[in-house]
Amino acid sequence: MQLKQNNSIFDSRLCPDSGSLEKANQTTLIDSAQHILIIYIIIMNLSAQEAFLKLELVLPPAPKPLGIYKPFLVDGKYLYLSGHGPVQPDQSLIIGRVGVDLDAEAGKLAARQVGLTMLSTIVTNFGSLDVVKRVIKVLGMVNCAPDFERHPYIINGCSELFASVWGQENGIGVRSAVGMGSLPDNIPVEVEAVFELF
Amino acid sequence: MQLKQNNSIFDSRLCPDSGSLEKANQTTLIDSAQHILIIYIIIMNLSAQEAFLKLELVLPPAPKPLGIYKPFLVDGKYLYLSGHGPVQPDQSLIIGRVGVDLDAEAGKLAARQVGLTMLSTIVTNFGSLDVVKRVIKVLGMVNCAPDFERHPYIINGCSELFASVWGQENGIGVRSAVGMGSLPDNIPVEVEAVFELF
Amino acid sequence: MQLKQNNSIFDSRLCPDSGSLEKANQTTLIDSAQHILIIYIIIMNLSAQEAFLKLELVLPPAPKPLGIYKPFLVDGKYLYLSGHGPVQPDQSLIIGRVGVDLDAEAGKLAARQVGLTMLSTIVTNFGSLDVVKRVIKVLGMVNCAPDFERHPYIINGCSELFASVWGQENGIGVRSAVGMGSLPDNIPVEVEAVFELF
Repeated sequence: MQLKQNNSIFDSRLCPDSGSLEKANQTTLIDSAQHILIIYIIIMNLSAQEAFLKLELVLPPAPKPLGIYKPFLVDGKYLYLSGHGPVQPDQSLIIGRVGVDLDAEAGKLAARQVGLTMLSTIVTNFGSLDVVKRVIKVLGMVNCAPDFERHPYIINGCSELFASVWGQENGIGVRSAVGMGSLPDNIPVEVEAVFELF
Repeated sequence: MQLKQNNSIFDSRLCPDSGSLEKANQTTLIDSAQHILIIYIIIMNLSAQEAFLKLELVLPPAPKPLGIYKPFLVDGKYLYLSGHGPVQPDQSLIIGRVGVDLDAEAGKLAARQVGLTMLSTIVTNFGSLDVVKRVIKVLGMVNCAPDFERHPYIINGCSELFASVWGQENGIGVRSAVGMGSLPDNIPVEVEAVFELF
Repeated sequence: MQLKQNNSIFDSRLCPDSGSLEKANQTTLIDSAQHILIIYIIIMNLSAQEAFLKLELVLPPAPKPLGIYKPFLVDGKYLYLSGHGPVQPDQSLIIGRVGVDLDAEAGKLAARQVGLTMLSTIVTNFGSLDVVKRVIKVLGMVNCAPDFERHPYIINGCSELFASVWGQENGIGVRSAVGMGSLPDNIPVEVEAVFELF
């Protein structure tokens, strides 16, 4: 597990005394160049879609349903997203249990990949991330060993992505980050969410 | 585990390239006679309650709460259903873990029984399935071994039922199908849902 | 595990034939003095905040986020609370798995402490419990061994608290009480909820 300096603007701002994150004291997914980009995005007051383009995020193809459900549903001003997994650009899924097959860093990267997959569902179906006003609710589900304790750290991989696109206020909603007994196809992370539309 | 030809209209329509379901290649709960009935229901444009009667579904008694909660709650145009288990017509519950005590087919049947139990809560309290306009959100929770991977297949047992009653468009909402560490009374499946009312 | 007479007004009213609770046949967290107080609160038609003061509930400090999320979010008339853990007055968390490190009584007390932590988030940010009109939805997540079966009993620790504050009608919403594979920091219970505001 590679240790780097923790330079995320998120951790220091939002979690001044978070035990779990202090214990972590490890790299976040946002390196110095990304850090500067995010400050630029904030200063320039870029829209979500502009931020998305500036961050040069690579989206995987929007996933097809693995069962009888819709990937997303609009109800009035709300956009519901079904549970998404970590789809990669070649359409394959990241596979494995966190704390068993994947370490915490790889788990956090998988959660970020889930977030990218959710962005893909939005961009593919609505044409732009600017249709979303804000994140309301995220349920982050980690497929991990029973003794794993750092679920919030893992799901931050998705939440940091949302915050970098929609901003510190609108990109962050309520959340539960919890450990499942198992997940479909043995994916490490699944996330469902509710957004408010403009 | 009995293998039959997969003849569900749902799988082929909605999941043309679903890995999990292709791997499955097993019977769905809808046999040829049911298949024809569902096509009849679509062609005749039957209401949910008419479809329910035509399908001759046998509902279990609506369950009493196992704790301090309401089985359902109406908030404006939304109907919330508490987590439901697979109640059988004699009021007993289907018991056991999927992948341990129940195979995938039995697990899918249990999910269908959960769906029937949810329909019972609606019919018992509102008199008809026609009060529901559409399914918004389903959380399908499977009590299974840590190496189980086919949660979507299991929860399809409930989702196919909803689609047969409310139709392909209104009977299918967003969904997460995930694996729990355990469930009350060791039931194999629990489902909670949000519906939109007319 | 200490056995006392079951004297809760909740169990007998709401769960006349609950298998899980009958099997339990153990103490609830509400002793005779509390029982009388709750009847007083009902007769006097006290508001939630008045009931809260009359019950002399001791709230822990409102928790800081352990990750990138908001502890609560208001959307129109809805108040969303992120997943909360059992914070104690000294800011430490109750730790351990139910059925392994904690017995059912200790688990139920932990769920009550989660409820107190949620009340603290409301009181700290809104000044009073009277801003809440009613409980809409509770997701009660228990960190327990795979063979644990009494999740509703555990989560009643939180639900009884809500009912004692907001009343039998408004303090009780829909609910799922389920078993997770693991929870952050190995806490025994996590609860997220949606409330309706006045």
